[in-house]
Amino acid sequence: AEGSRWEGYSDLPCLYLFVCICSSMSRTVKKCFIDLVTGLQPLNSLKSDEAASGPKQGPTFQDGQRRVDYVLTYHVQKPQSVRRKTSRFADYRILRSLRRSLSMMRSGDTPPSKEDPEIAAHKHRLDYHEDDKRFCQTEFEDNLREMGLELEKDEGNKIPGIGFLKIHAPWNVLCREAEFMKLKMPTKKVCDVVERINLFIHKVTAPLHPKVEPNRPQNVKHLSHPFSREKQHLKFDLLKMTFTGITSLLGNGVYTAAYPLHDMLFYPLLSRQILYEEWASYSVFYKYQPIGLIRKYFGEKIGLYFAWLGVYTQMLIPAAIVGVIVFLYGCATVDNDIPSMEICDPRNNITMCPLCDRACSYWKLKTACGTARASHLFDNPATVFFSIFMALWAAMFMEHWKRRQMRLNYIWDLTGFEEEEDHHRAEYEIQVMQKTLKKQDMSPKVVKVFLLLSPLQVGVTFAVVFGVILYRISIRAALHMSSNPTARSNIRATVKGTAAVINLVIIIVMDEVYGAVARWLTLLEVPKTDKSFEERLIIKTFVLKFANAFSPIVYLAFFRGRMVGRPGDYVYVIGSYRMEECAHAGCLMELCIQLCITMLGKQLIQNNLFEIGIPKIKKLIRRRKSDMDSQQQQDYNMTLQRHEKDHFLGPFVGLSPEYMEMIIQFGMVTLFVASFPLAPLFALLNNIIEIRLDAKKFVTEVRRPIAARAKDIGIWYNLLRGLSKVAVIVNAFVISFTSDFIPRLVYQYMYSPDGSMHGFVNHTLSYFNVSDFQTGTAPLQPMHLGYEVQICRYKDYRETPWSNTPYDLSKEFWAILACRLAFVIVFQNVVMLMSDFVDWLIPDIPKDISLQIHKEKILMVELFMKEEEGKKLLRDNHTNQSPFQPRSRPASHTPSNC
Amino acid sequence: AEGSRWEGYSDLPCLYLFVCICSSMSRTVKKCFIDLVTGLQPLNSLKSDEAASGPKQGPTFQDGQRRVDYVLTYHVQKPQSVRRKTSRFADYRILRSLRRSLSMMRSGDTPPSKEDPEIAAHKHRLDYHEDDKRFCQTEFEDNLREMGLELEKDEGNKIPGIGFLKIHAPWNVLCREAEFMKLKMPTKKVCDVVERINLFIHKVTAPLHPKVEPNRPQNVKHLSHPFSREKQHLKFDLLKMTFTGITSLLGNGVYTAAYPLHDMLFYPLLSRQILYEEWASYSVFYKYQPIGLIRKYFGEKIGLYFAWLGVYTQMLIPAAIVGVIVFLYGCATVDNDIPSMEICDPRNNITMCPLCDRACSYWKLKTACGTARASHLFDNPATVFFSIFMALWAAMFMEHWKRRQMRLNYIWDLTGFEEEEDHHRAEYEIQVMQKTLKKQDMSPKVVKVFLLLSPLQVGVTFAVVFGVILYRISIRAALHMSSNPTARSNIRATVKGTAAVINLVIIIVMDEVYGAVARWLTLLEVPKTDKSFEERLIIKTFVLKFANAFSPIVYLAFFRGRMVGRPGDYVYVIGSYRMEECAHAGCLMELCIQLCITMLGKQLIQNNLFEIGIPKIKKLIRRRKSDMDSQQQQDYNMTLQRHEKDHFLGPFVGLSPEYMEMIIQFGMVTLFVASFPLAPLFALLNNIIEIRLDAKKFVTEVRRPIAARAKDIGIWYNLLRGLSKVAVIVNAFVISFTSDFIPRLVYQYMYSPDGSMHGFVNHTLSYFNVSDFQTGTAPLQPMHLGYEVQICRYKDYRETPWSNTPYDLSKEFWAILACRLAFVIVFQNVVMLMSDFVDWLIPDIPKDISLQIHKEKILMVELFMKEEEGKKLLRDNHTNQSPFQPRSRPASHTPSNC
Repeated sequence: AEGSRWEGYSDLPCLYLFVCICSSMSRTVKKCFIDLVTGLQPLNSLKSDEAASGPKQGPTFQDGQRRVDYVLTYHVQKPQSVRRKTSRFADYRILRSLRRSLSMMRSGDTPPSKEDPEIAAHKHRLDYHEDDKRFCQTEFEDNLREMGLELEKDEGNKIPGIGFLKIHAPWNVLCREAEFMKLKMPTKKVCDVVERINLFIHKVTAPLHPKVEPNRPQNVKHLSHPFSREKQHLKFDLLKMTFTGITSLLGNGVYTAAYPLHDMLFYPLLSRQILYEEWASYSVFYKYQPIGLIRKYFGEKIGLYFAWLGVYTQMLIPAAIVGVIVFLYGCATVDNDIPSMEICDPRNNITMCPLCDRACSYWKLKTACGTARASHLFDNPATVFFSIFMALWAAMFMEHWKRRQMRLNYIWDLTGFEEEEDHHRAEYEIQVMQKTLKKQDMSPKVVKVFLLLSPLQVGVTFAVVFGVILYRISIRAALHMSSNPTARSNIRATVKGTAAVINLVIIIVMDEVYGAVARWLTLLEVPKTDKSFEERLIIKTFVLKFANAFSPIVYLAFFRGRMVGRPGDYVYVIGSYRMEECAHAGCLMELCIQLCITMLGKQLIQNNLFEIGIPKIKKLIRRRKSDMDSQQQQDYNMTLQRHEKDHFLGPFVGLSPEYMEMIIQFGMVTLFVASFPLAPLFALLNNIIEIRLDAKKFVTEVRRPIAARAKDIGIWYNLLRGLSKVAVIVNAFVISFTSDFIPRLVYQYMYSPDGSMHGFVNHTLSYFNVSDFQTGTAPLQPMHLGYEVQICRYKDYRETPWSNTPYDLSKEFWAILACRLAFVIVFQNVVMLMSDFVDWLIPDIPKDISLQIHKEKILMVELFMKEEEGKKLLRDNHTNQSPFQPRSRPASHTPSNC
Repeated sequence: AEGSRWEGYSDLPCLYLFVCICSSMSRTVKKCFIDLVTGLQPLNSLKSDEAASGPKQGPTFQDGQRRVDYVLTYHVQKPQSVRRKTSRFADYRILRSLRRSLSMMRSGDTPPSKEDPEIAAHKHRLDYHEDDKRFCQTEFEDNLREMGLELEKDEGNKIPGIGFLKIHAPWNVLCREAEFMKLKMPTKKVCDVVERINLFIHKVTAPLHPKVEPNRPQNVKHLSHPFSREKQHLKFDLLKMTFTGITSLLGNGVYTAAYPLHDMLFYPLLSRQILYEEWASYSVFYKYQPIGLIRKYFGEKIGLYFAWLGVYTQMLIPAAIVGVIVFLYGCATVDNDIPSMEICDPRNNITMCPLCDRACSYWKLKTACGTARASHLFDNPATVFFSIFMALWAAMFMEHWKRRQMRLNYIWDLTGFEEEEDHHRAEYEIQVMQKTLKKQDMSPKVVKVFLLLSPLQVGVTFAVVFGVILYRISIRAALHMSSNPTARSNIRATVKGTAAVINLVIIIVMDEVYGAVARWLTLLEVPKTDKSFEERLIIKTFVLKFANAFSPIVYLAFFRGRMVGRPGDYVYVIGSYRMEECAHAGCLMELCIQLCITMLGKQLIQNNLFEIGIPKIKKLIRRRKSDMDSQQQQDYNMTLQRHEKDHFLGPFVGLSPEYMEMIIQFGMVTLFVASFPLAPLFALLNNIIEIRLDAKKFVTEVRRPIAARAKDIGIWYNLLRGLSKVAVIVNAFVISFTSDFIPRLVYQYMYSPDGSMHGFVNHTLSYFNVSDFQTGTAPLQPMHLGYEVQICRYKDYRETPWSNTPYDLSKEFWAILACRLAFVIVFQNVVMLMSDFVDWLIPDIPKDISLQIHKEKILMVELFMKEEEGKKLLRDNHTNQSPFQPRSRPASHTPSNC
């Protein structure tokens, strides 16, 4: 999938891409080597390959000595005709002129003033051919050899049709490059990171820590010299200015895959084995993750993802506990809830108006007893507290993560590291080349498509909702056959459940569709750099997937049962479909069910099916192609070498899907937490599994990704921040409009005769005179309940039939609406203020880290001062005729020498 | 005032302070010298003093050669008895032991385990004496001389009782210190900052630019070497670790003042003269400020203030224009405004209920015609647009400033500069010493005091409001004497105006009081560092002054006329004072008058009186002390030297008052802009004067401040940000609750029979049956209007006397309330979203600057590469037995060499 972006470009001229790579590819590869071989460790702690005397543990070249550091794969050609052999020289000339024009372009930052006629002539016949690929390969390999790298080819020994180019970086080369790149060298100074109190905490939580690196003291940090760091950045600047070339060659089919090799598995003390045992196993689910080792093996970017996931999961623990307490509070108080008692009380013989035209008849309010009791579980004053709690929790989480990130930055020595600037994407360069011909910009088009897509999405959502409505209506017809009330209520529950399941299935299917759409749109846009490509893709995917996941929930929370009209004046859509109505206190219940099923189902299906199942099937299919039975397969596997085994693993597709999944979950946890306090618990349970599942995937299922540096989680942080802001207003609306919290309060303090909740149910129901039914809408079986109904009740605040303005919205309606809105304003502003306060209260940099940084600075200054002092002394001795008295300076300028 | 913080400490032992200063003072002074003498310019572009052959232009020592770089003043003692001469040795011993205990404290970061008995014994008898001062001075001066500085004393030649210590830093010392501190050296490389298009813009706007540095090209920027920058920071770290000592000596009275010298005035081509002509003059009010020169002369901190003030003023221009257009729209549509037409129409013979008990009588609505028409000017749909515009304007302003700051940081080469860490305040150190004895922490006490102060403030506000109410009541009594309606309405307007003026006077008086209170509270708190002292002081001052300035406005906007009750059931406070009522559409009008008078008055009085008047008076008094008449004075002035002239100038009191004034103004402009669209215009006019006024003050009225570096405007930015956030919600409430915007909309779309505004006035008035008056509250003159009144009207939405629930809040009230609240929610969230969008849309770093930074980076890399290449070549030649083939690297690695 890393290469799949490239699929559309496989017919583009290799030569052009090659130009880009010639000067740059080498460095990119070099950087990978150094990162990989040294495992991000200081070079001088490694032993030279040549010097090591023991047997080689890693995969090696045929001689059993030289280690394989990186692998490129390609399709092996059949010995073909030399049809285009003569064209090679011509191609080389094109290459030269292209290179020339390209360098002109770059140096001047302007398009070439006039086109090279040679290129123009060849432009249309540069179709991509096997020979060209081979030529590219040869050229590229020569380049690598020139750099001092050692190559070995392994063509079609085991896996037919695939050739491997194994690359080894000799110790000399590494040293030279490391020296040239001034990799950060640790100085002799070390300082204690862990204080005494921390040591105690460490002791107590010892069983929670994974058993990693037992001999290496964790509390010693090498003090690295910022000057070499500064120089290193300058080198990186150099690297940045060149392109990343490997993706170009991959996308073009010159090579089919490029990956560094995994460690051996089932070989003790190797990082991968430790990760496998102490991280990628369900049996250690209660332990912290070995973030340091993850970072060492996979690089900072993946390390940060798992660190973030860990912090999120850890933070979910208190949220889940409070959520469960809130839910239990609901359970405990359900028997004391006066409104549901009133509903369930058979003495309150309230006759309700029919829920649908003609087919439905009048019904007794007490049949809604179960729903009323159930909805109390999620709709009680504790949920208001809980949603405030969760808003603050979200703010705390963001702060906590900022601090954790800061700490990791410090421990991983990234404090001085600046995000590398962007490489121009090769696609963009190509498009620029083509655009000079076509003179068109796709960007506004994409915006248009994206805007057009929104109504489409609304349409899809409507279709889903409408589908579910149709489903319900058909079920209701079936319901009508039976006259047993318990069977009816059972069926009603079933309907709600199955409708939610249908929604879920549609969500999951559309999720994949939207993912593809976002990718397509972003490709169409041709962003300038890799970073902007990634960001735009993420934003588009986020918008589409988020809308997809949340539209049914938003419908249930805010629109369902709002625009139904009233008995005698119902709102009809598309002919004669009456808008759906909620049963008494029913919408919240359905919202809960929907949230519950979406969360559980999405997580279970997406985790199990997509993350475990499909990769396994893919692997199986890939192996099936080789037509062997299981025993043969196993034997065959035994003979495979590391690079061949890794070839059968799935490619690394980036972290975006993992982050996306978590962000959507974060949305579920924060956005509608007011209606479903168990959401954090569900999320917690899922994440405990998710961490180990992802770990297993990274350790055993996919090829080893190239280590990438990163200082933060990038755009995901902004999305999280945005979500936690939106959550405040959404929760305010859920509490005030979806739940009965405000009407209850208003009744208690404004209308209740005795200040209690008694009479609340009666207060929420309006009167309807059955003679006011529109013709053809009155129930067919008016005597269904056994008596003739004159006045039926419905849930709304409207005037009585016998008032001056019958069925108008009553004063109570407006009063309650005003209170609901006032609550939204108060809630939003208070919670925002509290969040800002939390934000301001918790410093972004942990105290101990800032102290450490300060201490290191002092040490650095001391070192530097001594150095300067030496220089100065030397100079002073040299020039004794200095016109002023040299003043002696103390060697150390710390205040203690005051 | 810089020294006034110290007043409370003048009886503390000098010796202790001296310890702190001995090791640190020298460096602080050194830094000042270098900053001042080099004028923040690269050293190597300066000529040596010794080398300059022409006559000295600046103030010099007696020999006419050595320039005076810095001046310390002190009281000259009369030749006194040698009473305490013998105690000097004892004091020296105390000094030693204090020094010892202090160094113990610092090195261990813990209080000394046991006290030196010697100190304890002396602690209480160390009263501060002239002899001690003299001893301190001698010691300090010796220290300065040891550093290589040259001193000259000038005692009581012209100004009796005051001695001057003139300090000269010889060229050698400067060079040595500069070398030691590795001041940033410009390299030879320069790059074009200004593009061609900018040059064009520059040409067009040429008359707007001040005539500064005509010969020096503005588009050349020196590329400074980041390595020396890095090292420089290390040096600054060293400096930071020591204390700033000069304030200690000043506070203690050892010296009475310390200031660098101004340039000569009326001497062409000197910076001060250019500033005086091209900046500190009203005649150049339309020109840009010479920010570069301001920064060169006063340092970055003051430069940033004026840059900020300039950006703010510039941004006010569009706001003022739109505001005037909105106001003119109100003027143009006032004749078409149906509600005010209805009020003014004599055919609508509406009798209103009396506005006060007994004394007042019924009145005709058409007497409120003038107010209604006037309030239309500020209350029309355009103001809604304007407040949205101003919210976005505030967001734009913040973004614009961020960009400007970034640009200045780049031009002033501060991009690599990190904010210096804090010095511990000497007061704090002293308090720590004392606390080890007293064992008490003031901090919680201060919080308590501050919290106690809040109710006090509320009390003061109430007192103000109440005073104004009493004032009104007394005037109303006078009003009653006259029966001429025009006289009445004139008097009513006068009452409003005079009440606002009274408020204004109280605000201004309390402003000073609160400033002193904030300072006192912060001193009580003893913050740890200078920076935290400043921040805490600013926050406290801001809270108090802001509440002071805005409480009458908030009262008028949101509370006035809200809780009046209704006829027959008025709300009474403190016995029999009826809460104030607004005339029809009157509250908004009064709010406008209050805002107008506060803005104009505060600015005029504070600017003219406090900023010009009082310093002039002070100066006058200071001169009067010397008992000379005007001619003598002038003659005397002629003979004064630069350092003596500067001594007569006021001390520099920091930028806080200037910023505070502007922040309060920003609050006025953004917070209540919905009710007063002319606020930006007033602010603009004020600021145009303010800039030049401040400029004049800095150039001619106060001593030259010590140049201070700063990267940003610090906490003021956060306060601005907070204000612009609060502004959104305040404007939402003003529009929906203070103005009649929502009731009009609701009437038009819900109640109006023909969809027009006709009948709106009638709709807003409820009916009252005069027989329902409480006993003793009915008007004494019921026949005042000439007929008997049965039913009078009042402005509220209540049920009619003949309904089932007379005088209850009506359905319309609740409907309108709901709409008002809904508007607040929609307005707040839409505007917040739009602000965030603006924030996101405008990049923080201007495109050209980020490009420039990138280009510089490439240049740096090139330079560095060449350097490295040289080193490598040297090394390679040295060790020819290298085990691998040295690969040749191109000298330049820019992509153009691809």
